[in-house]
Amino acid sequence: MSSVFTEISGGLNAPAGFLAGSIYCGIKATNPDKPDICMIVSEGPAVAAGTFTTNKVKAAPVRVSRANLRWADEVRAIVANAGNANACTGISGIETAKRMTSAAAKGLGLKSRQILVCSTGRIGVQLPIEKMEESITQLASLVHPSGSSAAAESIMTSDTVKKEIAVEVYLSSGPVRIGGIAKGAGMIDPNMATMLCFITTDACVEKAELQQVLSVSVEHSFNRITVDGDMSTNDTVLMLANGKAGNSPLRVGTADFEVFQRGLDHVTLSLAKMIVEDGEGVTKFVEVHVNGASSFSDARRAAEAIAKSCLVKCAWFGEDPNWGRIMDAIGYSGVRMREELVDIYYDGILAVKGGVASSTPMQKLKQAVSHDRFRVIVNLNLGSAEYNVFTTDLSTDYVTLNMGE
Amino acid sequence: MSSVFTEISGGLNAPAGFLAGSIYCGIKATNPDKPDICMIVSEGPAVAAGTFTTNKVKAAPVRVSRANLRWADEVRAIVANAGNANACTGISGIETAKRMTSAAAKGLGLKSRQILVCSTGRIGVQLPIEKMEESITQLASLVHPSGSSAAAESIMTSDTVKKEIAVEVYLSSGPVRIGGIAKGAGMIDPNMATMLCFITTDACVEKAELQQVLSVSVEHSFNRITVDGDMSTNDTVLMLANGKAGNSPLRVGTADFEVFQRGLDHVTLSLAKMIVEDGEGVTKFVEVHVNGASSFSDARRAAEAIAKSCLVKCAWFGEDPNWGRIMDAIGYSGVRMREELVDIYYDGILAVKGGVASSTPMQKLKQAVSHDRFRVIVNLNLGSAEYNVFTTDLSTDYVTLNMGE
Repeated sequence: MSSVFTEISGGLNAPAGFLAGSIYCGIKATNPDKPDICMIVSEGPAVAAGTFTTNKVKAAPVRVSRANLRWADEVRAIVANAGNANACTGISGIETAKRMTSAAAKGLGLKSRQILVCSTGRIGVQLPIEKMEESITQLASLVHPSGSSAAAESIMTSDTVKKEIAVEVYLSSGPVRIGGIAKGAGMIDPNMATMLCFITTDACVEKAELQQVLSVSVEHSFNRITVDGDMSTNDTVLMLANGKAGNSPLRVGTADFEVFQRGLDHVTLSLAKMIVEDGEGVTKFVEVHVNGASSFSDARRAAEAIAKSCLVKCAWFGEDPNWGRIMDAIGYSGVRMREELVDIYYDGILAVKGGVASSTPMQKLKQAVSHDRFRVIVNLNLGSAEYNVFTTDLSTDYVTLNMGE
Repeated sequence: MSSVFTEISGGLNAPAGFLAGSIYCGIKATNPDKPDICMIVSEGPAVAAGTFTTNKVKAAPVRVSRANLRWADEVRAIVANAGNANACTGISGIETAKRMTSAAAKGLGLKSRQILVCSTGRIGVQLPIEKMEESITQLASLVHPSGSSAAAESIMTSDTVKKEIAVEVYLSSGPVRIGGIAKGAGMIDPNMATMLCFITTDACVEKAELQQVLSVSVEHSFNRITVDGDMSTNDTVLMLANGKAGNSPLRVGTADFEVFQRGLDHVTLSLAKMIVEDGEGVTKFVEVHVNGASSFSDARRAAEAIAKSCLVKCAWFGEDPNWGRIMDAIGYSGVRMREELVDIYYDGILAVKGGVASSTPMQKLKQAVSHDRFRVIVNLNLGSAEYNVFTTDLSTDYVTLNMGE
């Protein structure tokens, strides 16, 4: 099954013709020596695709990048900063985001609308654009063919590890490569997480097809993770494709398109899982899988209700297999259900049969919940629809980390 | 305005003709000497009204009480236990709830369908009905005219203080009294909280009118509180009216009906606020008031999104006036909004004007959030609909309290 792709090293630079790098310009006040801006550049022409937060409060860079994605036929670079979200910053914020693209364009000899821009960090504070512009222009000459890790590190906020992956995908015409980096940590919720993800590929794909393959991939990865149920104003996934692999353009419906989709899905799902595992204060990584639902939307609502329940997540933190709280969450999710049909498993061990306690000894259930990673399976036994979500426990550290800036 | 009623002492026993009491029968394993069952009895005929959880997973006592409320013209007593929710307990659970009503009926010389029953505590464990039955029957002869406080104490789970209130209401024909007790603490969410509330009145009200006045009152009180966003399987508000005050029956549309409504609203809102203040691990009591919304349902959705946001609540715990997280929550709530029109106030102090930071010094905002109680006002500046919710911060103690049983 997985022989259509292989994981390789190199991150964003694994695909041919991409440069990356980072620089310090003084936004992250608490980490004065750490780079806080990254840049990713295609050496030749490229097309781009993107998916953005569905929050109605959209950060300025989200608005600017969406417009550039829509109107520019060719996009060549991404510039992103951490430490300040440039959200709720009004007209000035839009101006600042545009000045970031102009500063990058100046250094790269491109037009500003060929640049996409992202920000992540505190909401409601203006970026110090004056001291950023020169650094961004300078960064354009510092990007290099092995800068992926530095870029991944520079966008970390409360992340504790950098998130990077690459795969080689075997199309009928030969291999192509996909690389990606991401940041996450807090405000993680489906549609999408407080996260940024940048993906490069040297495959030849046209703009519309790239958008399609990316949208499908995001739906199965970043839209299925939740840490705290808070959807951010800045969530963005951007992908650049420069065609340097020389394959014939990928067409929807072909076997190669499917293979490419699977390779990309591996990249996005891997990065999504890394975000959950590195969520703020996380001690448990939990997959919630709901099946037997009457409809896809019921399966999703039930899974998300469980994955977001404060009480369920506190119980997991305490390694307490408190399935009553799972039943409760399904009940208030509003999905079609019959209490007396519900079965619940922890890592394959039956906890609830027909809506009541199974005969499994509590000690055995406790053992399942004591693992760092486990899976909760809920069968509503009503239909055939299913959905899965990746989530976490809710720890005292999560609260402490989010008490103040 | 408030001269139509006065707070008085006596709780459930303030209205004429009600007895109450409690007894220990061994359900709360961790508190072996504390009573864990209470009983409330009307000395003469009474009618009853009730509102129940809208969770699709309904505890057995909820099912039994709903049926009794519906089919019995006259209800005389309530029996309730703490320490075990009798939820997700299948057919056996229903049988147990019925046996609780039968045991009470036996002691009181009534029919079992004249008894309402409630349970609160852990989900998914069968009640030890054998050792409860005798105690319940015995309790019927122990209820007395000053047992309200003992009843309020016996239904406490993780509550730290008992919740009790009474008012005298001045109808045109003379005074009537309303008394109530409640328990809350965890699983607190609108529609309704994990809470039990029992209310008595000596006013003469017929069953249909009693249900109407109670439903309205619950909508403005218990349905507007949230601690953790988890709606319980057991939430119940029950009210008994025995007519001992001798007023002519209250009719909808009369001035007396309005006066009675206001008195009852004071009882339910006071108890609802006590539940929030005594929520698990709570250090802040916060009223979220959204106005200027396009519709009532938008106002409610925005207020609830803010009141349930983990990130907003963690910021309050840390006394951080992080209004960006409030903007974020409004944005993902899905309501009609224009970011550039939103104003936000902390206790009357302007934090956000037109979607961006106001000129108020951060220190002044920090001071507002440092109080134990404060009010967040959000004006969407789009229409005239409004809604308010009472909520709390999210503390490390909340997590610790919910880590295990």
